[in-house]
Amino acid sequence: MRDGNFESYLASVGEALEAVLEELLASQPIAGEIARPERLIEAMRYAALGGGKRLRPFLVTQTARVFGADRGNILRAAAAVEFIHCYSLAHDDLPAMDNDDLRRGRPTTHRAYDDATAILVGDALQTLAFDVLADERTDPDTAIRADLVVTLARASGIGGMAGGQMLDLEAEGRFAAGGAPLALTRDEILRLQAMKTGALITASAEMGAIIGRADRQQREALRNYGHLLGQAFQIADDLLDVESDAATLGKATGKDSSMGKATLVGLLGVEAARRRLAGLVAEAEKALARFGGEADVLRQAARFVAERKS
Amino acid sequence: MRDGNFESYLASVGEALEAVLEELLASQPIAGEIARPERLIEAMRYAALGGGKRLRPFLVTQTARVFGADRGNILRAAAAVEFIHCYSLAHDDLPAMDNDDLRRGRPTTHRAYDDATAILVGDALQTLAFDVLADERTDPDTAIRADLVVTLARASGIGGMAGGQMLDLEAEGRFAAGGAPLALTRDEILRLQAMKTGALITASAEMGAIIGRADRQQREALRNYGHLLGQAFQIADDLLDVESDAATLGKATGKDSSMGKATLVGLLGVEAARRRLAGLVAEAEKALARFGGEADVLRQAARFVAERKS
Repeated sequence: MRDGNFESYLASVGEALEAVLEELLASQPIAGEIARPERLIEAMRYAALGGGKRLRPFLVTQTARVFGADRGNILRAAAAVEFIHCYSLAHDDLPAMDNDDLRRGRPTTHRAYDDATAILVGDALQTLAFDVLADERTDPDTAIRADLVVTLARASGIGGMAGGQMLDLEAEGRFAAGGAPLALTRDEILRLQAMKTGALITASAEMGAIIGRADRQQREALRNYGHLLGQAFQIADDLLDVESDAATLGKATGKDSSMGKATLVGLLGVEAARRRLAGLVAEAEKALARFGGEADVLRQAARFVAERKS
Repeated sequence: MRDGNFESYLASVGEALEAVLEELLASQPIAGEIARPERLIEAMRYAALGGGKRLRPFLVTQTARVFGADRGNILRAAAAVEFIHCYSLAHDDLPAMDNDDLRRGRPTTHRAYDDATAILVGDALQTLAFDVLADERTDPDTAIRADLVVTLARASGIGGMAGGQMLDLEAEGRFAAGGAPLALTRDEILRLQAMKTGALITASAEMGAIIGRADRQQREALRNYGHLLGQAFQIADDLLDVESDAATLGKATGKDSSMGKATLVGLLGVEAARRRLAGLVAEAEKALARFGGEADVLRQAARFVAERKS
């Protein structure tokens, strides 16, 4: 595939994913459930459907494809990662957290519904993620399913995404006397970002490797690729926040610096951040050295993440 | 065991569980985690340690014991259920939900910390529950672990506990024009309660059966027992709310009726509710008919749930 076709391929995987998300968020209860209350399933659909580039699910499917694994049920594992991502957005946007009104160009879940519903939306999307991974339709091998659950859980709980959001609130000075933002060191910023956004991106790559029955070295290489890609993604995100406008991005911009948020762009400056971004993309490609042409899409993904405009 | 010893046995299982919860909520990260931010792990410990009768974990361990399964790692599965229960308390107590200040005689998590921290506490406790279930230390058989994850997820997500909380908020008239409580029918009340509290109690009994390698009929019998026990538990809880005082119960009382909350006690009256409670205990014992003396503890548990004073 030529680079020019990458975005349309990304979009086509996103469409295939959307159909699976739709099916998993049907209004009818599945075996073992009593009922799906209308208001809650509707709000879950609002929070999870029709939005975003679906980068994390794309990574799950494309790392699995490196090993030739290309079955439809890989999209279920991809959907689980996206549910975790969407749950975190619904909760992070709450007034008690980051207090955002706009997300992907639409009112955030708690603005479209209310705070209580948005809390339950996040809770139930998280539950559904683990339900889907452990279900036999995702993979016939129970050891694979258990591995997927542990990998996603460890990336998204206290030691990963949720812990990262805690560090982020602390960095804003939320719990400090006076409430002034903390001055984070480079290493502290890197750790915060590795937890808040990096861990889930890394897990996405690793989960594809798990489904693909990667050996230990292959799995470690793809974990490493995911880790570098996550760092690149974060710098690109921070650069977009500084340089883009709300209309292009579909959410408030310039918010990070106005809140004194610690980012690498703020610490290093735009030019140095750009150089670091280019370096990370090169490193991510190097992490794929053991793979041949079957990993070209992942190489393109690294470049896309660095160059995206929204 | 004689009935008189039941409470001390319940307490001793609770103590064994506490040690496992302590270990799972250690401040050091485990493999696959980056770090455990101090404020978050401390608040998670506040929300999960040192409280309650631990009825759900007790059920997990005692249904497993029916099959002679009595290994230490069953307490890990029991801990997972308790993490789900504690996450739901931390979220349900939030100002945006039920707005409670007192729980188990102490300030609720968001009162002891803040709303954002309480949201993350619930999120991370839920994640930890599924992490623990899927981890190899819980059971050597991956099929058992996958089954445990699906069973707990389906009981606690949109089709169970979280969905039940949504129905409960709706029943309070939260989203109705005028905000007046809805007049629920008996069947609607039963469905709400089966989801909000019943599903997790039923799952506790079922998870013990899964760990005990129960056959299909045995598993169904224990599910049925759990379902009846859950109904009994709820009526007993509603009766306590009407008849007890805050000092005994460690949380606000009389709140249900003052909020016009739909309960069977409110619908049937205290005397009819008491008769229904006795009937449910008898039915729960009957559900155990296929088991002999090895299920005596479960029979005592049914009586205890109906007769408890706090």
